[in-house]
Amino acid sequence: MSDSRFFSIDRPIAFESADSDTALAFRHYDKDREVAGRRMEDHLRFSACYWHSFTWPGGDPFGGETFLRPWMHGDDAMAMARSKADVAFEMFRLLDVPFFTFHDADVAPEGASLAEFNDNLKAITDLFAQKMETARVELLWGTANLFSHRRYMAGAATNPDPDVFAYAVGQVKAALDATHRLGGANYVCWGGREGYETLLNTDMKRELDQLGRFFTMLVDYKHKIGFEGPILIEPKPREPTKHQYDFDAAAVHAFLQKYDLLGEVRVNLEQNHAILAGHSFEHEIRYAFANDLFGSLDVNRGDDLLGWDTDQFAMDVGELKLVFHELLKHGGFTTGGLNFDAKIRRQSIDPDDLLHAHIASMDACAQGLLGAARMLEEGALEGPLAKRYAGWDTAEAQATLAGERTFEEIAERARTLDPQPVSGLQEYLEGILNRY
Amino acid sequence: MSDSRFFSIDRPIAFESADSDTALAFRHYDKDREVAGRRMEDHLRFSACYWHSFTWPGGDPFGGETFLRPWMHGDDAMAMARSKADVAFEMFRLLDVPFFTFHDADVAPEGASLAEFNDNLKAITDLFAQKMETARVELLWGTANLFSHRRYMAGAATNPDPDVFAYAVGQVKAALDATHRLGGANYVCWGGREGYETLLNTDMKRELDQLGRFFTMLVDYKHKIGFEGPILIEPKPREPTKHQYDFDAAAVHAFLQKYDLLGEVRVNLEQNHAILAGHSFEHEIRYAFANDLFGSLDVNRGDDLLGWDTDQFAMDVGELKLVFHELLKHGGFTTGGLNFDAKIRRQSIDPDDLLHAHIASMDACAQGLLGAARMLEEGALEGPLAKRYAGWDTAEAQATLAGERTFEEIAERARTLDPQPVSGLQEYLEGILNRY
Amino acid sequence: MSDSRFFSIDRPIAFESADSDTALAFRHYDKDREVAGRRMEDHLRFSACYWHSFTWPGGDPFGGETFLRPWMHGDDAMAMARSKADVAFEMFRLLDVPFFTFHDADVAPEGASLAEFNDNLKAITDLFAQKMETARVELLWGTANLFSHRRYMAGAATNPDPDVFAYAVGQVKAALDATHRLGGANYVCWGGREGYETLLNTDMKRELDQLGRFFTMLVDYKHKIGFEGPILIEPKPREPTKHQYDFDAAAVHAFLQKYDLLGEVRVNLEQNHAILAGHSFEHEIRYAFANDLFGSLDVNRGDDLLGWDTDQFAMDVGELKLVFHELLKHGGFTTGGLNFDAKIRRQSIDPDDLLHAHIASMDACAQGLLGAARMLEEGALEGPLAKRYAGWDTAEAQATLAGERTFEEIAERARTLDPQPVSGLQEYLEGILNRY
Amino acid sequence: MSDSRFFSIDRPIAFESADSDTALAFRHYDKDREVAGRRMEDHLRFSACYWHSFTWPGGDPFGGETFLRPWMHGDDAMAMARSKADVAFEMFRLLDVPFFTFHDADVAPEGASLAEFNDNLKAITDLFAQKMETARVELLWGTANLFSHRRYMAGAATNPDPDVFAYAVGQVKAALDATHRLGGANYVCWGGREGYETLLNTDMKRELDQLGRFFTMLVDYKHKIGFEGPILIEPKPREPTKHQYDFDAAAVHAFLQKYDLLGEVRVNLEQNHAILAGHSFEHEIRYAFANDLFGSLDVNRGDDLLGWDTDQFAMDVGELKLVFHELLKHGGFTTGGLNFDAKIRRQSIDPDDLLHAHIASMDACAQGLLGAARMLEEGALEGPLAKRYAGWDTAEAQATLAGERTFEEIAERARTLDPQPVSGLQEYLEGILNRY
Repeated sequence: MSDSRFFSIDRPIAFESADSDTALAFRHYDKDREVAGRRMEDHLRFSACYWHSFTWPGGDPFGGETFLRPWMHGDDAMAMARSKADVAFEMFRLLDVPFFTFHDADVAPEGASLAEFNDNLKAITDLFAQKMETARVELLWGTANLFSHRRYMAGAATNPDPDVFAYAVGQVKAALDATHRLGGANYVCWGGREGYETLLNTDMKRELDQLGRFFTMLVDYKHKIGFEGPILIEPKPREPTKHQYDFDAAAVHAFLQKYDLLGEVRVNLEQNHAILAGHSFEHEIRYAFANDLFGSLDVNRGDDLLGWDTDQFAMDVGELKLVFHELLKHGGFTTGGLNFDAKIRRQSIDPDDLLHAHIASMDACAQGLLGAARMLEEGALEGPLAKRYAGWDTAEAQATLAGERTFEEIAERARTLDPQPVSGLQEYLEGILNRY
Repeated sequence: MSDSRFFSIDRPIAFESADSDTALAFRHYDKDREVAGRRMEDHLRFSACYWHSFTWPGGDPFGGETFLRPWMHGDDAMAMARSKADVAFEMFRLLDVPFFTFHDADVAPEGASLAEFNDNLKAITDLFAQKMETARVELLWGTANLFSHRRYMAGAATNPDPDVFAYAVGQVKAALDATHRLGGANYVCWGGREGYETLLNTDMKRELDQLGRFFTMLVDYKHKIGFEGPILIEPKPREPTKHQYDFDAAAVHAFLQKYDLLGEVRVNLEQNHAILAGHSFEHEIRYAFANDLFGSLDVNRGDDLLGWDTDQFAMDVGELKLVFHELLKHGGFTTGGLNFDAKIRRQSIDPDDLLHAHIASMDACAQGLLGAARMLEEGALEGPLAKRYAGWDTAEAQATLAGERTFEEIAERARTLDPQPVSGLQEYLEGILNRY
Repeated sequence: MSDSRFFSIDRPIAFESADSDTALAFRHYDKDREVAGRRMEDHLRFSACYWHSFTWPGGDPFGGETFLRPWMHGDDAMAMARSKADVAFEMFRLLDVPFFTFHDADVAPEGASLAEFNDNLKAITDLFAQKMETARVELLWGTANLFSHRRYMAGAATNPDPDVFAYAVGQVKAALDATHRLGGANYVCWGGREGYETLLNTDMKRELDQLGRFFTMLVDYKHKIGFEGPILIEPKPREPTKHQYDFDAAAVHAFLQKYDLLGEVRVNLEQNHAILAGHSFEHEIRYAFANDLFGSLDVNRGDDLLGWDTDQFAMDVGELKLVFHELLKHGGFTTGGLNFDAKIRRQSIDPDDLLHAHIASMDACAQGLLGAARMLEEGALEGPLAKRYAGWDTAEAQATLAGERTFEEIAERARTLDPQPVSGLQEYLEGILNRY
Repeated sequence: MSDSRFFSIDRPIAFESADSDTALAFRHYDKDREVAGRRMEDHLRFSACYWHSFTWPGGDPFGGETFLRPWMHGDDAMAMARSKADVAFEMFRLLDVPFFTFHDADVAPEGASLAEFNDNLKAITDLFAQKMETARVELLWGTANLFSHRRYMAGAATNPDPDVFAYAVGQVKAALDATHRLGGANYVCWGGREGYETLLNTDMKRELDQLGRFFTMLVDYKHKIGFEGPILIEPKPREPTKHQYDFDAAAVHAFLQKYDLLGEVRVNLEQNHAILAGHSFEHEIRYAFANDLFGSLDVNRGDDLLGWDTDQFAMDVGELKLVFHELLKHGGFTTGGLNFDAKIRRQSIDPDDLLHAHIASMDACAQGLLGAARMLEEGALEGPLAKRYAGWDTAEAQATLAGERTFEEIAERARTLDPQPVSGLQEYLEGILNRY
């Protein structure tokens, strides 16, 4: 297989214009265009992911492989891993994304023991390092797959068996080493099996203590090797388990405070996980910023009518506009980025479907960013907001917030108050939003 | 109106037997029967609530009053409040519940100003104190209604208007004073409007700081007046708002840690709120115990197929068995109890429907308690649980948990491990559960 | 009260341009602009509704009135009804909507008996007829409120009490008479209480037979008086009841076939009801067209994260584009229209919030219509669709569909077939959608 | 591998008593005990299924095989199929279930062409026929897997490619032939891919017409070969697709009426599918009986908090009591039965977990049946129901239902009616339920 044969094109996708007729072109994403003081590329920090694009065969709970990728069928696992890497880097080049992400198990064969897996991962890390010398792409983050193998069926760090905990430590150490070696900007943990199927066989307190210990050791190790990026936890309420401990940003916030990990560990948020937890994506982002937890974003999308993780490519410009509004208000990404933790549908079996999907979503993000930047510039939402809370700027209100008033004093003053409500202007603001 | 006329009976409901033919009798709740070292009454600490039973007229979003209670129609608000109290205490007597609960607005007319409301509440508190001298019933908790009046439409403590914050302080001070005067065992806060309808007009960080300040002042005041019961927050994810800050036990846990309120404020959990947040009731209870947050329970029930708070009387013995299993494992209630935050259906317009509902649910609780006590006694669930985690009792595992091992040491050891998963025995344990 | 004082303006809202600075102006809705062969106004057939805009006081299940409308407080019910009508017709004029809709109970006091209610409705119908002589507005449909009064708590046509059934007949007859008199284009039935709270007290079969009889009689009566518009059923799965018989378009389809009402009764579809039933709005519309059930649309919107009917103003241009694509494909409305069964949020207490909400949603609809018209003109979706199913145009495939092949013949032919799947192109098509 | 080695026992499970200490024993299911005029076994008609118990390897969307069954790993597909059959029939014997069910693809290798698949299925059918000569077990129903292979990714009968339709016909014909040969009591169709992922690429009307044609041909073929059991459709709203045409019983009802299949095709209902569609299981059963659609039941269970099909073993005695109440009211099963379309959890990796799961669920069903039979015998629910609707038994009400009254006549009579609502007694009835 030669890389150039997998996709129909071999020239990187270029920006054209909103009404271009070229199928494989950007219509809005113009990486060098300056928006709100940065190049679009530097705002958006797009990242392609290895797992959905190159490792997932197209199966679902009721059906098997549909994609029939050439690198999935063969006897020599390392040779297949190298073929896969060739196609992956070819896609990064075609899409011209500045970042990528991977799990250890996406890129290297697991072998017959952890020792063998560690070695395979090192070999592939060497290969990546070599490819990255000439490619433009950098590593947004690495991570370890602690959920697919049957040894993890009852959890990794929260497993009832301490040897599984140890195995997880071994995998994560190697994955962090690889991430560090490749100059990764962050390291991510998704606790897909850190939760339970039934409370009948689960000791929640004990498992949370195990998890706290795991992260404490991980943070210690990170400092020891001089890895400077943050550790990120990715909240998700459920699936694969019935209930995951990293349910949402608030649950992670509670956990980090309890185990004294605040500041060391941040969150990697995803829209699909947010809505499964009953939150909007903006809510989770805002909560993270309000509590100094924000790390990075997975820019996929769920289906509001489905109760599971569909990991579709984000296409909703309106929603993305709100996401970027939150982000820009807080100065944009630092180490984080927009990772496409998104998979083409099982029926999208043409190799070029991978390109169409990324292009369409990158364009949607670019449109969202442009709208958000204009809204912020014009104070479309920030202006009314400041006005709404203006009452709290008075000296008396500030004294209350500063703890200089007692309950009795305020209660006494309230006896003759008759505060009059004012309109929340929701529809007016929704109309404003539609203008950008 | 005479009390004895409202219900069809005037003798307290008595325990008979499981196969009794008496319509208004207990079949399982035998208050003096000893279970796991306490009288049933002391385990269950049942509490009837004022609002759903006596203040709600039977309306829903698409229809009005159905109950036509005599005390809801008249010109003299204080006289009506006294009539209502007569019927309420009559029901407490007939059901022989040891506790009741109320909001300020349930029991006293709001009047034309806070000053007037404060006065009315004091007058009713006097009336209650007098009734409680002869009645067996005590006060489980009091609370203030900070959500029904239009002044609170955009929140109470989190309102954009500091005068509304002040008004809320005034109401809560008075409600806590009343609770203290009546010997209440706890004081509860439900932040029904402490959240948002849309993020477009909401400054979440600012509002959370306001809320933190509110609770800090409330705790200070509680200590000042010598109120010894805990302050309880009642988590609920949404309804009436789109999103409430006290989403679930974990969100409250994060909030309490951030604003240094842990230990002072605990949670009052409700099944219906739990399932709206995507959790089982047992999950919330277990989370609360695992993080030393547990306070009290609202023992109603939601409908798994409906997306709103139905507040039905709990009737599911299987679920209640698990609730009491959690509770008994941790030594049962201290200040908390089982509050019937439950309303009879809008079509249950007979006065006796109030009795039937409480009786049926009290019996279901009694059955759940008996099953749970036997399970604990026989170690039906605790035995398999201890066995499952036995591996963590080894010296090496304990050293890991105690922070005496590094990531590298464990990773090195893991290189040759091959941990074998063992069955989680879920169906076996579910079968065990059905035997009790 | 003079009409001109209720809103801040007295000149009808005008179309300006997309970047107009006027707060109260249309930016996209230009009623006389021709799109796909019709004026925008004739495509969209906007209708304002009486109930949410003028009858709902701003309450929710946890709070009371917020709007304090002048016509809601007074002693003379008919005078208040007339005041309300003045403001309503003023809003119709300011928004320049071609249609309006109402329930009997929205416009006329219910009085002390059905006879009195019938008389009041006739008086208001006279008033409306008189106002409509000079106003531009017409009646899209009328309907009867068979769900708010306590007599309907257990259903109207499906009530266990035949006298309630009779009362419902009496109300519907009068409402249809009023609709006919005012030249209404349709008559709508929403069975808000035609369902159950619990199966324990419900005889479903019996109730469905009652409902079938009710519609049969209604259709007979409609023909008798010469009312030419269709009868429309409005599907909704639940709320206020636990389960409504008109769950979704398919459930209504099954009902209409069983009781031989197909062709006489059609559906009035709503986005919020669709998503509560687990469907997208486009799904319901497409199902209705595929089965010749389509009637009219309620153009409001739900909140995907909330489990109840929020009835918000539709603002999502992307979704509306798909709605109009369905509609235009099938030739657009005949008797139907776009009814704003939408309420401003409880906190939107300024009278002008009513205008802002309608304007923003009318503009969003106009944008959706324009996008849909261009997509259809260019065959953006229809082209790929025809290509996808082209295999079924062969003679053999057509013979199969025509019933000219047996199972055995086809099975025999299949023994050597090896059909190869082709890409569904979902992301490509989603990208296309974002271009319009 | 010898059969006796797979499970820990080789003696069939026996009925002991409610307080038996034997782990592998029935505590309530006593097959020969007479209940409501039939043996328990004849009421319950339990069926074990091949797919979940013997074909599913324990994977989920985030993890692979956990069970490592010996018959899943080898080179000789037919030899493995025979090994699997040995264990399956051993389990049928140990559980002493009177029925089993299978998909074609569960029992026979698919081979390289349909012809080869057909041959393999015939060979396995011969094996089954031979085993069934000596075993007690009979075939409840057979079915074809039209969803796992990639050729079906866009549907089977509703596929855009008529060759896939043909392939489906070929598979179903062979599966029905096998079912007929083995004396199957029913034939089941589950349309797992008969729906869509996105409306953007879907022609719903065309696909429904294809589906109608498919069933018409299948029914013709069934009659031709003299298969006397009904064809059953299994409703499910979604998963694997975004939307399935057989959404719920009502959607199937609409489809069957439209394509004139009523009476020939019935429904096979499942609790998990019901709740995914927003219905209780009892609702679907009642709907099916009310419209003469009832066929058979899958007796598994979903998790109310999860949005996907968990297919857990039914353990909730309270819910099962209602299921059997519906069933017994209508005379119980004719051709149908209780199929365990249920899988042990992914972590239940001990072979005996299969036995524990079936035993616990069979016992729960037995308890439900006993409770339901007593409720019916005593008229616990039927008595109050008859009383509630008694008003409809009057001559006037019957005349209305019989079509002997007009809308005008009834409306006229209603002018002076003032029907008074009566209590729905919901809590009272829920209490009654808990007594059985």
